[in-house]
Amino acid sequence: MLEKLLSPRSIAIIGASHEERRPGGQPLHALTNYGYTGKVYAVNPRYTDIKGVPCFPNIEAVPEAVDLAIVALPASEVPRILEECGAARIRHALVLSAGFREIGEAGAEVQARLDAALARSGVRMVGPNCIGMLNLGARVFAGFGAGFRQPDWKRGPIALISQSGGFAYSIMAFCQEAGIGMDYMVSTGNEADLGVLDFVEHFLSQDDVRLIAVYLEGLKDGRRLRALGRRALEVGKPIAVWKVGNTAVGQRAAVSHTANLTEEYDFYRDAFREGGFVEIREVYDLVDAAKVFRSGKRPRGRRAAIVTTSGGAGVLLADRCAESMLELPPLTPTTVSALKPLLPSFASIGNPIDFTAALAQKEPEFTQATELIVADDNIDLALVRSFPGRDVDSWADHLIAHANTAAKPILVSLSSTPAQAATWAPKLEEGGVPCFEVPSRAVAAAAMLCEFAERERHSASAKPLRIVAAQNLVLENARGGLDEDQSKRCLEAYGIRTPRRLFVDDAEPYPERIDLKFPVVVKIVSPDIVHKTEAGGVRLRVAAADLRRTLDEIRANASSYMPNARIRGFLLEEMAEGIEMIVGALNNLSFGPIVVVGMGGVHAEVLRDVARRYAPLSPEQAREMITELKGSRLLEGYRGQTPRDVNALADAVARLSWIISDHESVVSEIEINPLLVGFEGSGVTAVDAVVRLR
Amino acid sequence: MLEKLLSPRSIAIIGASHEERRPGGQPLHALTNYGYTGKVYAVNPRYTDIKGVPCFPNIEAVPEAVDLAIVALPASEVPRILEECGAARIRHALVLSAGFREIGEAGAEVQARLDAALARSGVRMVGPNCIGMLNLGARVFAGFGAGFRQPDWKRGPIALISQSGGFAYSIMAFCQEAGIGMDYMVSTGNEADLGVLDFVEHFLSQDDVRLIAVYLEGLKDGRRLRALGRRALEVGKPIAVWKVGNTAVGQRAAVSHTANLTEEYDFYRDAFREGGFVEIREVYDLVDAAKVFRSGKRPRGRRAAIVTTSGGAGVLLADRCAESMLELPPLTPTTVSALKPLLPSFASIGNPIDFTAALAQKEPEFTQATELIVADDNIDLALVRSFPGRDVDSWADHLIAHANTAAKPILVSLSSTPAQAATWAPKLEEGGVPCFEVPSRAVAAAAMLCEFAERERHSASAKPLRIVAAQNLVLENARGGLDEDQSKRCLEAYGIRTPRRLFVDDAEPYPERIDLKFPVVVKIVSPDIVHKTEAGGVRLRVAAADLRRTLDEIRANASSYMPNARIRGFLLEEMAEGIEMIVGALNNLSFGPIVVVGMGGVHAEVLRDVARRYAPLSPEQAREMITELKGSRLLEGYRGQTPRDVNALADAVARLSWIISDHESVVSEIEINPLLVGFEGSGVTAVDAVVRLR
Repeated sequence: MLEKLLSPRSIAIIGASHEERRPGGQPLHALTNYGYTGKVYAVNPRYTDIKGVPCFPNIEAVPEAVDLAIVALPASEVPRILEECGAARIRHALVLSAGFREIGEAGAEVQARLDAALARSGVRMVGPNCIGMLNLGARVFAGFGAGFRQPDWKRGPIALISQSGGFAYSIMAFCQEAGIGMDYMVSTGNEADLGVLDFVEHFLSQDDVRLIAVYLEGLKDGRRLRALGRRALEVGKPIAVWKVGNTAVGQRAAVSHTANLTEEYDFYRDAFREGGFVEIREVYDLVDAAKVFRSGKRPRGRRAAIVTTSGGAGVLLADRCAESMLELPPLTPTTVSALKPLLPSFASIGNPIDFTAALAQKEPEFTQATELIVADDNIDLALVRSFPGRDVDSWADHLIAHANTAAKPILVSLSSTPAQAATWAPKLEEGGVPCFEVPSRAVAAAAMLCEFAERERHSASAKPLRIVAAQNLVLENARGGLDEDQSKRCLEAYGIRTPRRLFVDDAEPYPERIDLKFPVVVKIVSPDIVHKTEAGGVRLRVAAADLRRTLDEIRANASSYMPNARIRGFLLEEMAEGIEMIVGALNNLSFGPIVVVGMGGVHAEVLRDVARRYAPLSPEQAREMITELKGSRLLEGYRGQTPRDVNALADAVARLSWIISDHESVVSEIEINPLLVGFEGSGVTAVDAVVRLR
Repeated sequence: MLEKLLSPRSIAIIGASHEERRPGGQPLHALTNYGYTGKVYAVNPRYTDIKGVPCFPNIEAVPEAVDLAIVALPASEVPRILEECGAARIRHALVLSAGFREIGEAGAEVQARLDAALARSGVRMVGPNCIGMLNLGARVFAGFGAGFRQPDWKRGPIALISQSGGFAYSIMAFCQEAGIGMDYMVSTGNEADLGVLDFVEHFLSQDDVRLIAVYLEGLKDGRRLRALGRRALEVGKPIAVWKVGNTAVGQRAAVSHTANLTEEYDFYRDAFREGGFVEIREVYDLVDAAKVFRSGKRPRGRRAAIVTTSGGAGVLLADRCAESMLELPPLTPTTVSALKPLLPSFASIGNPIDFTAALAQKEPEFTQATELIVADDNIDLALVRSFPGRDVDSWADHLIAHANTAAKPILVSLSSTPAQAATWAPKLEEGGVPCFEVPSRAVAAAAMLCEFAERERHSASAKPLRIVAAQNLVLENARGGLDEDQSKRCLEAYGIRTPRRLFVDDAEPYPERIDLKFPVVVKIVSPDIVHKTEAGGVRLRVAAADLRRTLDEIRANASSYMPNARIRGFLLEEMAEGIEMIVGALNNLSFGPIVVVGMGGVHAEVLRDVARRYAPLSPEQAREMITELKGSRLLEGYRGQTPRDVNALADAVARLSWIISDHESVVSEIEINPLLVGFEGSGVTAVDAVVRLR
């Protein structure tokens, strides 16, 4: 859909100018001097020609079809221009002008007119308040500022989409110097119409783009972000996303900058982790992502080998690997035997594999040993500290030759300085072997790659199979929320166990036989009493013999607590045993339903020991969540206790995820607190639960 | 003491060689060609002259006094050579030879001979298995490898001490390219005699060294590390320490590399945090530390101002500041008023302060606005995104002039790429304004600086005042540990409250009057029964009326649990109320006594929610520890509860720290579990305690 916008065959510059430094002058200059082969028209009532480009008084006067209008006029004129573009059947506009909602109240009126003009005209617009758009392949330099004065930008299969124009240029320039070219750059500005996700969607389907980079302050459609994340995994194309404005202070700055109400970062992070996103925290990460994803090779697992001639560097790389959850397994005995003749007797053939100074000047032995390690069945990828000897050029050639045949990624951590490596590292890069100037970046890149590859592998199975059919829930006549019994029925409908219970109707005679296992819990049932415990309306561990007396006492308590309360009766419930968990589900309007699991009591709330996943999810995914909890050691049988029924817990979490998914249009929140997790094989019980409605 | 070693007036090379590439040849070449002005002698029985340097058959034959012997001979000969050096009154040797304990069993015999020779000869030695030592000021190139082939190393007031020779060169070369010179480099190798800390101590007293950088795999004397950390704060000289081998996997590699048994990282980290250390995780950090500490300026607090013309960069910097605990306070109204005429009406004068594109080409307005912000009373340091306009040279001049008069640190985060900034950033650096190529490094450097400055300020008050006099404890006749009553008496002696209790001797008649508040806890007292609860020997909440019967039951339980157990009697204790904490003290043989505080129950153990500090400490420091706990919200009065007595808790922690400090030669561990923290004003109670002895 955005093909014509990004690769227009004809462009009109509305507000064109003679002056190269002005927003209306720079695109004119660039589009006529940097190799653009489409047609260029100027629009400005004051001229008939600007630097040899025919100039028309208005867009209607342009004699031929125009694919893209670049608008560089004062904000107040932009709405009219958009309407004129619509009338002239121009489908796409790129508005460089500023002075809309980003300047606050002063821009509100013109923003409203802009929105109306967009709706009426049918024009799809980039901006306003953006620096423009760049397509190096088609030589479309459609914008202003330093980024559009560089006809020699290096090309590369990367598309950068940025909510900050100024920062987009910084990113591009920095990457450029690190050898990373980008074919596309789009500055989305205020996103009055087209936003970041429209471009992500477009580039996911473009074969000439292999990595999408996004600088993101905030967006409104979290579900679409998630859907695009799934798509990225399906097509195997990573979206490197640099989300800023994540902290309270950062958020304040984001609001004043783009007037985007930044969503809570948790939802973004959860979305990033479930999809084909690679999170970027610094421009280094983007450079490194570009390098490591370039070859298209994917490791089959997280088992790395560290190859070094410096023990010190090996230790350091090992520390970083451990932090990044990369494993360093021992090599197979076959590999160790094969390595022995190549290495000195005292070399440590562990992992890191320290070739020692003995191999620091020995090529091709260094590469031969490396090849044996890469081929090892225990290894999924290799982190090679670069050859420190004199034959480094020959080493680079050998390594490239090997990398071309090897199925596993090989990453190089430079032992030389960037300047020293300048003669041979670019050759390695071109040959498909990414090089990193410091060890921590090599390991971070390896971890990025492993993480993405892992998600790709699981992507097919990511869509959870339905473990319970969609159930109709009785949600009528329940303004705001369901009462405890209604809430528990919802859980039961989806197969989540609740305590056996009996309603004793206060209007009926006292029941002759109570088919419950004593002692029981007794709770008052009254539509008027919300805080049952406060009202003296709850009793635990009530024996059969004490039941009748207890009901009388509770009734008396309730009446004195609230004299006019309507007392329907009493809920008797069997007692359950287990470790307390909190299991909840929450419907985020932007991102969709999410499930939250935490250890009960104060753990979840005070210690923030919670795991989150978007719903629905499989029991296996629920199990992963549980494993993430620091407190999960308590479930595993801490200090010699019998392990708890984690399978049943995972099953209940998955079922809860289906409730919120099946009923997300109605249900806003479900909380089971506590869910008691019994010993292995004895299941879980939802002791208290509340379902809240939208 | 090490002056003669590092700046020798005469050097003998034992095992000198004609071949420049050999360890015995390279120093000969370097010391005679790179400007060393002292005397150089060669020692090798095969020659009388090597490249014009007089050569002697052995060290005894050298006619004049020698300050330093460089030894480059096979390992087996080194012990003999050391003895000869001793006989020749040479006080210092630098042993480049390898093949000692680092090669494992094969090197054990020669290592033992080396140790004996060291003891006998009185020679102080660097190495073996090191690459050597460098003193650029005195032109001492005493080592081998690439690092000693660079007569043009840039100088700088930094000393690098490294346990990895190979990595030391990498660090030096990388820093060099980043504009950071180092006057000293010492590779300590196996540290059979002189170790990292000997050199740290030396350089702390050297005026020409302003930053000490240490690459550390492990060391044995943690107390000395801590003492040097305190000294570093006193003299205001940061020790940038890069500790590796911190993770389980990393530790394995460290062991196989240097045969240093790496200590648990926690003790190191705690030592780093209490002293004048700056922790380094990557060579970037070292470069940045060198830059940011160069000016000697210290911020008075953690309140930063972010100055930018790119909102996007501002948001990003703000995120990083929040993560690094840097505050971004609003500017004073005075500053805001003064800024208004300089900035466009829609510019956000918050913090970040976005000058907007309007000032992106305006000098000196950009600097004027910056100066107003730096002068603001709310601000301790400024993070300035570099001027993006054409007059960047003039901006740099203005900023340098301002920085020379300003008392506050100003850090620049480059908006240009490193190559673009190459013409003016070095000028800023030389002018005392550190520049950082990416935002995260600028913020990390600012945080480093603030953290060090804060510790410097607190350094004078760091030594805690004694809040309790040293007490004699009854520790005799207690092999391994004290019983509960003895342990509690130790606590009481130091003013930590325990429950009121009464010992009921089973050999005496049942007491007529029991002066305790009921209900009480009853515990059996028997030297034979360790697990009292298991033996049925503990009862909670015993009412006065039930006491006698309870004693009989407990006695019966104990007898059936262990028929021959000697039953001394019963301990009756008043019940206490409060939130459970674990408070412990532990004596680490290397680092000294440490105090540990955690929330009780599973929090500390399962959730690793603990804070640690070396003992002794003040109640204020103890309070800081408590604040670090995630669970401390529970003490503050979670969900509307009355706050707990945190003052009393802090006081008890401080008192405990004095117990272990005063008795560290005898006590190995003290654990109070639980310590109950009552409501505000009602104190804390050590309900159970154990003191273990060495």
